[in-house]
Amino acid sequence: MNKIVQCVPNISEGRDLDKIEKIVQPLKNNKGFKLVSYEPDQDYNRTVITLIGNPDDMIDPLVAFFKEALNHIDMNHHKGEHPRMGAVDVVPFIPIEGVSIDECVSYAKNLAEKVNTSLDIPIYLYAQAASTSDRENLPTIRKGEFEGMKEKIKDPTWNPDYGKPQIHETFGVTAIGARIPLIAYNIDLDTDDLDIAKTLAKTIRKSSGGFQYIQAGPAYLEEKGHTQVTMNILDYKKNPIYRMYEMIHMEALRYNVKVMSSEIVGLVPKDAIYRSLIYYLDMHHIAYDKHMSLNQMTSYAIKYLGFRDFDSSKIIEYHIEDLS
Amino acid sequence: MNKIVQCVPNISEGRDLDKIEKIVQPLKNNKGFKLVSYEPDQDYNRTVITLIGNPDDMIDPLVAFFKEALNHIDMNHHKGEHPRMGAVDVVPFIPIEGVSIDECVSYAKNLAEKVNTSLDIPIYLYAQAASTSDRENLPTIRKGEFEGMKEKIKDPTWNPDYGKPQIHETFGVTAIGARIPLIAYNIDLDTDDLDIAKTLAKTIRKSSGGFQYIQAGPAYLEEKGHTQVTMNILDYKKNPIYRMYEMIHMEALRYNVKVMSSEIVGLVPKDAIYRSLIYYLDMHHIAYDKHMSLNQMTSYAIKYLGFRDFDSSKIIEYHIEDLS
Repeated sequence: MNKIVQCVPNISEGRDLDKIEKIVQPLKNNKGFKLVSYEPDQDYNRTVITLIGNPDDMIDPLVAFFKEALNHIDMNHHKGEHPRMGAVDVVPFIPIEGVSIDECVSYAKNLAEKVNTSLDIPIYLYAQAASTSDRENLPTIRKGEFEGMKEKIKDPTWNPDYGKPQIHETFGVTAIGARIPLIAYNIDLDTDDLDIAKTLAKTIRKSSGGFQYIQAGPAYLEEKGHTQVTMNILDYKKNPIYRMYEMIHMEALRYNVKVMSSEIVGLVPKDAIYRSLIYYLDMHHIAYDKHMSLNQMTSYAIKYLGFRDFDSSKIIEYHIEDLS
Repeated sequence: MNKIVQCVPNISEGRDLDKIEKIVQPLKNNKGFKLVSYEPDQDYNRTVITLIGNPDDMIDPLVAFFKEALNHIDMNHHKGEHPRMGAVDVVPFIPIEGVSIDECVSYAKNLAEKVNTSLDIPIYLYAQAASTSDRENLPTIRKGEFEGMKEKIKDPTWNPDYGKPQIHETFGVTAIGARIPLIAYNIDLDTDDLDIAKTLAKTIRKSSGGFQYIQAGPAYLEEKGHTQVTMNILDYKKNPIYRMYEMIHMEALRYNVKVMSSEIVGLVPKDAIYRSLIYYLDMHHIAYDKHMSLNQMTSYAIKYLGFRDFDSSKIIEYHIEDLS
């Protein structure tokens, strides 16, 4: 069986499309993997890039991509809603088929070493690849962001796993790691009041007493003029999408705020959508089977979970079918 | 200012009212504190006893109460829905007014020593009084229950804080500790299917990925012929009552199960009720102020949170007013 991973580099540039094109160029038209998408977000000033395919073929193009990011991004001038600490902010390897999480850890270390050696960028290993339990959680590493890392990296507790204890002065630092599929999910609120979005985020996130596998915060979308609860779902089996959607809806009622829609950032495993849809299908007594088409799933997800800007190509399995 | 604590011994007898009377006898008509209530539960075969008042005056009567429990309960014949490990299963001291949590820890240790010395019952200190972090969580200590403790207590990790590593053969073992107010809260489901109650409990409890301060499980109420999600809310500020009530309602929809009502076991701080009511009052645009009467609060709680068997005497502050 072919080895297939998903690799999702995030870069700290979401506005200058010309720069973004130059940075992703090395990831295009390669043998063995596909550049599935890159999604610039102006408010976040960040682009999430998704690769799917054989990890052995990804490493060298990824090093070239780091070099382009180094050439085109100066973090000293970066502003955006999303927390960030480097020009390439984070690179996770995610096992999809024929590859274990441990193998993904090896790919992460291999990439980290090559990037550090050739470009002198300090690297933290995170998630399953972390060298200490303090470093499992990306927000913990990233706390202080680019500006704060200048001092933080000198603290022996926060010396990088690769490189000197000193940030790259324009690039910053990067986290590279391996993890099970994570879902980046945002819920759109019909209010511009960031305090309400924050209060709602606190009802679900672990750090404020909420669900074990939820990281969440508020965001204001300048472009659209409304707020979101923006979250990472770290384990969609234990904290399914629909539960967050329904709970934010319920909590928002007291503020007279409505949930307008929601969005998946990047890709999502079919299983995660399926597990959420059946909540609604059961409730409405609609028959279903596990093998419903991706198109059928997509149309249910739009109807019941209010997904916007969603089509079946956002489901990981769509691209695997395509590769084989 | 007078020292006021709430002390809530739980005994493993909820059916034989004659025995229960004899056991609680030493707690009646004392100077300095009141026996506010004792609530036998036949399904749980357990009685929750609530004392409010000066802890200095409680210790000797509590030792006499342990002696009565020892005389009248043989755990080898005990059956009930609620997990248990001793004739007196657990005794928490809870700070209410003019007393710190640290002082409550001292009262717990004082009682533990006297009970062990005079009755040879092994005692575990738990919650804030715990000697190790493993012992903070009561269900962790109690795992295995009366039957399993016979072996578990011999494991050096689980030697008791007071007494020999050997259970009392008819009494079992007891946990004594100090903690902030905890709310014992149950949600009534219109189904007799315990699997559904269990699935619903798992959506909210910490150990299955749910909320940080929720312990929950399923229970079948023989007497009433329906199930409950039964829970402890360990921090009602971070995980308020209304959130559990609304979430169980939401999750139950997929199984065509309705939430019929809910119940507070023991007492509840006024602040916990207030924080939940304002969710509904805000939503319905009903004006309110912090100083609404306990009667007003009670009627809202019955209306919006479906409390059954509830009146203002279940609010802790009702009894404090009464003492002073």
